[in-house]
Amino acid sequence: MTLPRIVIERCHYLARCTEEPGAITRPFATDAMRCAHELVSEWMREAGMAVRRDNVGNLRGRFEGSGEATLLLGSHIDSVRNAGKYDGPLGVAVAIAAVQRLHDQGRRLPFAIEVLAFVDEEGLRFGSTYLGSRAVAGTFDLADLDRVDASSVTMREAVRAFGGDPGRIGDDRWKGGRLLGYCEVHIEQGPVLEAHELPVGLVSAIAGQSRHRLTFAGVPAHAGTTPMDHRHDALVAAAGFVLAVEREAVATAGMVATVGQLSAIPGAVNVVPGGAVLSLDVRHPDDSVRAASVQRLLAQANEIAAGRKVRVASELLAENRSLDCSPRLTALLSRSIEGSGHPVWRLASGAGHDAVAMSDLTDVAMLFVRCKGGVSHNPAESVTMDDVAVAIDVLFTFLELLSES
Amino acid sequence: MTLPRIVIERCHYLARCTEEPGAITRPFATDAMRCAHELVSEWMREAGMAVRRDNVGNLRGRFEGSGEATLLLGSHIDSVRNAGKYDGPLGVAVAIAAVQRLHDQGRRLPFAIEVLAFVDEEGLRFGSTYLGSRAVAGTFDLADLDRVDASSVTMREAVRAFGGDPGRIGDDRWKGGRLLGYCEVHIEQGPVLEAHELPVGLVSAIAGQSRHRLTFAGVPAHAGTTPMDHRHDALVAAAGFVLAVEREAVATAGMVATVGQLSAIPGAVNVVPGGAVLSLDVRHPDDSVRAASVQRLLAQANEIAAGRKVRVASELLAENRSLDCSPRLTALLSRSIEGSGHPVWRLASGAGHDAVAMSDLTDVAMLFVRCKGGVSHNPAESVTMDDVAVAIDVLFTFLELLSES
Repeated sequence: MTLPRIVIERCHYLARCTEEPGAITRPFATDAMRCAHELVSEWMREAGMAVRRDNVGNLRGRFEGSGEATLLLGSHIDSVRNAGKYDGPLGVAVAIAAVQRLHDQGRRLPFAIEVLAFVDEEGLRFGSTYLGSRAVAGTFDLADLDRVDASSVTMREAVRAFGGDPGRIGDDRWKGGRLLGYCEVHIEQGPVLEAHELPVGLVSAIAGQSRHRLTFAGVPAHAGTTPMDHRHDALVAAAGFVLAVEREAVATAGMVATVGQLSAIPGAVNVVPGGAVLSLDVRHPDDSVRAASVQRLLAQANEIAAGRKVRVASELLAENRSLDCSPRLTALLSRSIEGSGHPVWRLASGAGHDAVAMSDLTDVAMLFVRCKGGVSHNPAESVTMDDVAVAIDVLFTFLELLSES
Repeated sequence: MTLPRIVIERCHYLARCTEEPGAITRPFATDAMRCAHELVSEWMREAGMAVRRDNVGNLRGRFEGSGEATLLLGSHIDSVRNAGKYDGPLGVAVAIAAVQRLHDQGRRLPFAIEVLAFVDEEGLRFGSTYLGSRAVAGTFDLADLDRVDASSVTMREAVRAFGGDPGRIGDDRWKGGRLLGYCEVHIEQGPVLEAHELPVGLVSAIAGQSRHRLTFAGVPAHAGTTPMDHRHDALVAAAGFVLAVEREAVATAGMVATVGQLSAIPGAVNVVPGGAVLSLDVRHPDDSVRAASVQRLLAQANEIAAGRKVRVASELLAENRSLDCSPRLTALLSRSIEGSGHPVWRLASGAGHDAVAMSDLTDVAMLFVRCKGGVSHNPAESVTMDDVAVAIDVLFTFLELLSES
C-alpha cells in the first residue's frame, strides 16, 4: 500500500475512537483518546520510533538520528464535538509517514525526529486550548488543573485517571537538548488553496486574535404598547454593531472579524429586548492593524449605543499576538514545495494551532493542505489522496534539505 | 376609607396570592388563584353582588338592576411570572369599586351589572391565552383541555382539581339574556398617557398582530480561516433584517414591530453563523396596513438574504385581526372622561386584552389608566391613587350615562 493511502486510512481508523457513536468526538483524557493512543503508538513503532507518553498525555515517538539535535513534528489528536477526520490527525499521520519512508529506506538523518501527538489542542473538555503543546513548551498553566468538565471532574483528576501525574506536568517540558524547530502539517480549514487550485500552502504567519464580549443594555418593554420612539432596544443596537463589524473587516485587507454568538434578553417574542450580548472575534496577521480595528469597533459600538440611548460595555476575553513563522524553516519548506513541482502560495493562518504554543519553545513552520470547500470542524472535512501525497513529499524533502543545511 | 385607596390596597392584597414567595406569580387554577378567589368573592359580596364561579374558574359577581339587560365589566386576576400588581387586578377592583358606590348609595340601575374576574388571560400555565373570557364568549377551544403544564398536568385535570367540570365549560357561555356590552379598565402598559400627562385614555381599537418566525440559512465556517468574501453569514443577514424591521415600523404611523428573539447557530465564538432564527412581531390597528408592512418586510428579508447568498424561510405563527371598540360605548366613555375634567385622548391598544375575546359575544369598550414609565409585566408596575380615582369616576359616570341612554 502507498503511504498516502495509509495516511488517509489511518485518519479513518482514528475516527472510530470517539465518545459519540456515529460522530467523531474525542476529548482530552478519555477512553476515546486511549483508543487513539493505541493506534498512534502502533503506527509510530512501525515507523521505527521509540514511543513514550508524558504526564499531560501526549504521545511522543522518537526516531533517532546520527547527531544530537532534534526536529519536532506533530499536531493534535483530540477533536471538537462532531468533528471531521483530518483536523489534527492528518498532521500526525503525515509526520509518521515521512519517518516511515526514512525507516523503510534504512536512513538516519544527522538529527533525531520526534513526532508529537498532542493530547489537547481544541479545549473541548476543559475549555482551555493547547494543553498538550503548552506542556511541551513549558507554558502549561498549573491553575488549569482546577478546571472542571461538564461532569464536575477536575483536570487534575482527569490527568491522573488517564495515567499521568498532574504534579509532574512541569517535567513534560522539552528536555532533549538542542532543537532545530517544530514543523506542523495541517488542513487549511479555509477555502483559499482550493480557490487557487493548489494542493498545499506555505504558512507565513499565524494571525493574532482578540475576543471580546459586548453587552448592550437598554430597557425591556412591552412589544405591543411601546411606540417606536419610546424604545431603548438593545438588540437593534447590537444588530447595527454586527453590520459595523462586517464593514470594518471588509475594509481592512487580511482581516477576518466575526460575531458568532448573539442573544437577546429576555428573548421573548413580545418583549422589546432590554439586553443583547454578543461575541466579537477579530484576527489579523499584523497586531497593530488588529489593535487599531478593535479600537475603531469599540468606539463604533459606543456611538451606535449612544445614538439609541442604550449603554454598552465590552470585556476583553482573550488576546493572542500574531506569530511569524521561522524564515529559516519556511525557506526550506518553500524549496520543498518548489521541488514538488507546485507553486509556492504563502498565506497567513487565521486559526490557532499547536505551533503557536510551540513557538515559545523553538522556531516553528507550518504547511497547509487543501481541504474540500474549506470545511472543518464538521463531519464533511475532506482531503484528497493526491494532496496528501504532495504533503508527504514536501515534508520528506524538507527533512532532507534540513539535513543538508 | 376612600374607594381609590381601597382599590390600591386590594391590588396589594391580591399580590400576596402567589406561587412564588417574594414575587407575584398567579397562574390559572392554582392555590394562588384560590387565594385570589377568596378575596375577590368577599369584595364582590361587600358591594352587594351575588357571587358564583363557573366551570373554567371565573368569578362572576352580579349586581341586579331594575331591568333585564346586563352590562359586563371586568378584567383578569391571573398574572405572568414575576408580575406587577395592577395588570388585570386593577380592572376588577375598579369595577367592584364602581358597583360599591352604587350599593353604598342604595341605587339600582335599569340594567344588571356583572363583574367578571377572569381566571386566565396571560396563558402562563398552559400557554393558551384568554381561557376565562373565551369560556364566557363561547369560543373556548375544548382541545385546549389536553394541553399539559410544566408538571405534565392536563388542563382537564387542573380544571377539575380547581372545582370545575371540564365537560361543562360549554355551559360557561353567557346565558343571562340581553347584553349591553363589556367594558374593561386596564393599565396602559405603555408610556403614551404618561408622556401626555393624562390620567386615563380612551381605547379606540385593539391592534391586530402577526407573529412570524424567520430562519436564515447560510454556511457555517471557521471564523479564523474563512475570508470575508467567502462567507455566507446568516447572522449578518439577520442583523440587516432587524434594522429593516425598525425602519419599516418607524416609517409607518401607528405601527410597532419587534424582533424579540434572535439566536445564532451554532452560536460559537469562533464559528461564522450558518444559521440565525428570529421572531417578528408586527402590530397595527389597521389590518390592511399591517398586512402590507408584513409583506414588504418578508420581501426585504428575501432581498437581504439573496444579497448575502443565504436563504431565508418564514413561518406565520399567529395572526389576530384588529378590533374596533364599540362607537356607542366609546362615545359614552368619552363623555364620561370629559365629565371628569380631563381631555379625551384616544389610543389604540398594542396589547391584547380579554376585550378581544369578549368581542365575539358583545360590543366592547376599554379605558386605559396611566402607569409609571409605561412599565408592565414587572414588579415595578405602578399607578397613582389620583389616577385610580379618575378611573373610578369615569366608570361610574359611564354607568350613569348608559342608564340614561
